[in-house]
Amino acid sequence: MREVAVIGLGMTKWGELWEKSLRTIFVEAALLALDDAGVEKIDSMYIGCMSSGLFIGQEHLASLLADYLSQVPTPSARVESACASGGLALRMGFIDVASGMSDVVLVGGVEKMTDVSGHEATYALGTAADQEYEGFHGITFPGLYALIARAHMEKYGTTREQLAMVAVKNHHNGSKNPLAQFPYEITVDSVLNSVMVADPLRILDCSPITDGAAAVVLCPVEMARKMKKPVVKIIGSGHATDSIALSSRKDITWLEATFQAAKKAYSMANKEPKDMHVIEVHDCFTIAEICVTEALGLVEKGKGGEAVELGVTSLGGKIPVNTSGGLKAKGHPVGATGVAQVVEIVKQLRGEAGERQVKGARVGMTQNMGGSGGSTLVHILERE
Amino acid sequence: MREVAVIGLGMTKWGELWEKSLRTIFVEAALLALDDAGVEKIDSMYIGCMSSGLFIGQEHLASLLADYLSQVPTPSARVESACASGGLALRMGFIDVASGMSDVVLVGGVEKMTDVSGHEATYALGTAADQEYEGFHGITFPGLYALIARAHMEKYGTTREQLAMVAVKNHHNGSKNPLAQFPYEITVDSVLNSVMVADPLRILDCSPITDGAAAVVLCPVEMARKMKKPVVKIIGSGHATDSIALSSRKDITWLEATFQAAKKAYSMANKEPKDMHVIEVHDCFTIAEICVTEALGLVEKGKGGEAVELGVTSLGGKIPVNTSGGLKAKGHPVGATGVAQVVEIVKQLRGEAGERQVKGARVGMTQNMGGSGGSTLVHILERE
Repeated sequence: MREVAVIGLGMTKWGELWEKSLRTIFVEAALLALDDAGVEKIDSMYIGCMSSGLFIGQEHLASLLADYLSQVPTPSARVESACASGGLALRMGFIDVASGMSDVVLVGGVEKMTDVSGHEATYALGTAADQEYEGFHGITFPGLYALIARAHMEKYGTTREQLAMVAVKNHHNGSKNPLAQFPYEITVDSVLNSVMVADPLRILDCSPITDGAAAVVLCPVEMARKMKKPVVKIIGSGHATDSIALSSRKDITWLEATFQAAKKAYSMANKEPKDMHVIEVHDCFTIAEICVTEALGLVEKGKGGEAVELGVTSLGGKIPVNTSGGLKAKGHPVGATGVAQVVEIVKQLRGEAGERQVKGARVGMTQNMGGSGGSTLVHILERE
Repeated sequence: MREVAVIGLGMTKWGELWEKSLRTIFVEAALLALDDAGVEKIDSMYIGCMSSGLFIGQEHLASLLADYLSQVPTPSARVESACASGGLALRMGFIDVASGMSDVVLVGGVEKMTDVSGHEATYALGTAADQEYEGFHGITFPGLYALIARAHMEKYGTTREQLAMVAVKNHHNGSKNPLAQFPYEITVDSVLNSVMVADPLRILDCSPITDGAAAVVLCPVEMARKMKKPVVKIIGSGHATDSIALSSRKDITWLEATFQAAKKAYSMANKEPKDMHVIEVHDCFTIAEICVTEALGLVEKGKGGEAVELGVTSLGGKIPVNTSGGLKAKGHPVGATGVAQVVEIVKQLRGEAGERQVKGARVGMTQNMGGSGGSTLVHILERE
């Protein structure tokens, strides 16, 4: 297998982009990435998108987007793993380049979520849960994560305030990211007094409904070395599944797919949790970030809440998590999230993250998950 | 890149499977394939499915199916390219094994289409067309293919009877396939007198709405050589895109993506059209098979209708096409179709096709396309 580098980054402003269509925002991000890479011709494309069928009545997206990017007849594939679709697209592009099948690959993530009503969006997102054992009985994602939060509080003594601190930290980081949907600070008090969604989770514990796209360009490392930018390599890729229904898991506070995907990625990269300088994780709800930091081995089991409170995962802390603002402040166009995480990490490793730069960052990681943790993609990147 | 073999085949009976759910039929096909391969442990899974979101309200399918197959935490990815989703899943599995990332890979295709009303199924299928330029204006797939048929008749003199002969041939083949949805003969008269759907296409020109699943197991050729079955290799894989809107094409009678995908597959396999002994193509409508045989270079441009009339593509003809019964008689559970094509070709190359066996077949091809030809996957297989 060949070594693979990330040579181009692109991302649109995220938010309620009512004046733009899915194809428009994808092309915007893709052109930025191709321009950043300095390439025009690509050998293949991978698109992460969760549910363009339910959100905009459009499947067959990969060909449509290849056409609008003036890239037909280039091979183009759409992949889906709920909210981990972007991370999955990255892995498919990584394997494609590593195999020798393609040299230059565009990996994009996109979702247009605000063209439907809130009720319809909740239904569409709910299709990431088990329809027979969860969805049909009325539970939606805030409810599923509320169950996880309540269990984590009960088992480990995680506090309501610690959950709030995840949102406060991520909004602090997001306030330094001009592409974020909500680039402003919030306080623990504002979280605790925001409207209840599913006890104990309040609206400021939840990532928003977002339109947005992100894209990266991959190529063999040898090709990247001839270019002018710092060479950032993908040195580890881990992908794992778990039951998508919470009721089938032994312990709902533990994200086994994240643990398994990270194990593979660490092993491939020959790295350990302590080697990471900056990390983007899937904070779809505040409790998710706490559980993820534990499953990645960044903090001890049960200590995720305490770590946030102690500032371990803050910008300037020992292991900065979600410097981009995370899903909470940057927004969460589900299929795009996993690709945008890579955009942030590569910016950090190149030293291009501006006010939110982690000084001297050379190794970073992304963790992107689907549903309540039924699928997870972990990637480790390193600057040469 | 490593050479890749197909070592296991599985397929359910296709039809209106109201008593079974999507997860049930997938597991049924997957277990048959694993059993045929003689393996239990797999390294990864790829699932082709067009729109489980719209058909059954379930995304995040890859993890769900890995769980129901008792394969978690194995990596599992769902891919979508409308009706070419199955062929795309095969290509992803092929690249995965070729790259060295995985050894044993399960590739499945599945669709459950009869749990919704006919109107809803037509809407779901319509999302393979361009929603902004086609769907929103009311046209559905029979209408799009009717436009192609009318143009082909006008330009090349293809006759209404020749269209009917495609259906008659495929039903003849399908009558020998016990897994087919409609395993019985029809006549040119019955096609010409069947109910009109979109002039000139009648109901017996159209593939049906079907529930079904198919699966194959892939591994490196060196591993396959140690097993007891004949070794069938994937020697060519081509994937290409085109605009999904008919209005953006120069000539709607010509399937450019099929031509481009075939060109790549022939080149990789170092084969020509005349080297093929048996072929499965995407006859979603009778006119589609005619256009596809031309774009694959099996017959001269404009002569696809004549070739059917002369029996060139019949069982016993020079180039037997759709010995399985094709989409027309076997059925068309959209995401499963591309995988079932491979099941048929491998059966033929192993000499296991029973009454529909093409004698001495050693090289075969599959062509699977999305929408009105906006994406195409072509694979060439050879028995060692």
